[in-house]
Amino acid sequence: MKKNAKEAIVKAAILLFNSKGYSGTSVRDIASLAKVNIAGIAYHFENKAGLLEYCFTHFFEQYIQKMEEAYFSIDKGARVCLKQVASDLLQFQCENIHLTSFVYREMSVDSQVVREVMSTYSLKEKYYFQKIFERGFEWNEFRPHSIPYLITQFKALLMMPFLNTHYMREVLYVFPNEAFFVQKYLKDIYFWIDQTLCSEIPIKKGAVIK
Amino acid sequence: MKKNAKEAIVKAAILLFNSKGYSGTSVRDIASLAKVNIAGIAYHFENKAGLLEYCFTHFFEQYIQKMEEAYFSIDKGARVCLKQVASDLLQFQCENIHLTSFVYREMSVDSQVVREVMSTYSLKEKYYFQKIFERGFEWNEFRPHSIPYLITQFKALLMMPFLNTHYMREVLYVFPNEAFFVQKYLKDIYFWIDQTLCSEIPIKKGAVIK
Repeated sequence: MKKNAKEAIVKAAILLFNSKGYSGTSVRDIASLAKVNIAGIAYHFENKAGLLEYCFTHFFEQYIQKMEEAYFSIDKGARVCLKQVASDLLQFQCENIHLTSFVYREMSVDSQVVREVMSTYSLKEKYYFQKIFERGFEWNEFRPHSIPYLITQFKALLMMPFLNTHYMREVLYVFPNEAFFVQKYLKDIYFWIDQTLCSEIPIKKGAVIK
Repeated sequence: MKKNAKEAIVKAAILLFNSKGYSGTSVRDIASLAKVNIAGIAYHFENKAGLLEYCFTHFFEQYIQKMEEAYFSIDKGARVCLKQVASDLLQFQCENIHLTSFVYREMSVDSQVVREVMSTYSLKEKYYFQKIFERGFEWNEFRPHSIPYLITQFKALLMMPFLNTHYMREVLYVFPNEAFFVQKYLKDIYFWIDQTLCSEIPIKKGAVIK
């Protein structure tokens, strides 16, 4: 019974934080949507800030776990591994679209909890990206390039649809919560990996194409 | 004198909206930072919502103007034109980094003002993108692909550094407000245009490379 109340609170908080923003949501709103009393929220999370921290941890613990699991495929090569990361993270974001949208938006605000998230989870994420890119350079799979700029582009492609869900739906008529979207968009990310990241073998002048 | 007060209010509002979030900022905070009294804000903008609307309009009027101007280069080809758009918009975002960060974050919240912005400026932006991509397909400059998915990727690359300025600075040590960043990152966007968007001319078997 208690576990159900906790889940209901988290679910309501994610929905409201996402649609009305963190600051625009009151504990009263969450209690009302979750059909619990305010004391129930205080019991499980202390206050609104506690709920926010729970949402961040809940999101990034799973995110980093996906990343770690995908990293196991590094022995198949950096290209295969990065595609696995793209596939698993895109799927995860799609399955948790409200939480993802809200967490990504809130990550752009300068706050104590965001600093803590960056100093733990973002650094871990960067560590894995670095390992994959360095392996890719070393084995001549990827053309040499600045790792921070590559991370920026890869994360841009991964995050954009979830940071702008209203824009995607209302303007582009693309629905990032649908499985069809994941399939189609993943191909685009794979194409980015293949075309801009993977090193081409330069064709020598005078060579005859076989 | 009055114009200076108005500018000071806007500047203070942008800084505070960006660092503390729109809901986390009070009219009192803005008045205090801008060194004006609250009546001054009421005189120019009515209330906080009026200030928010002003910020959005201020941003998107300039944004669409840049887009329109860059579109004039369409006669030089779709590839040249899209690179001009990338260059002008990246420069504009870099010069207005606080406003850009805040507007992009706030665009992810579902609100009346956001819906109005989308139904005017985002549709205009989409119109120009559509014209450029269609021209690119028609003249065989770009490989055929879904326009909404291309817009998603192009906008992802353009927006990401400004939506995540803390992450860029604290984790990747990349500083999106510097001219150096614009130069370097623009090359990456150009590379995306050249490698993933532009259609390759297939090399015929038996041909000799000159």
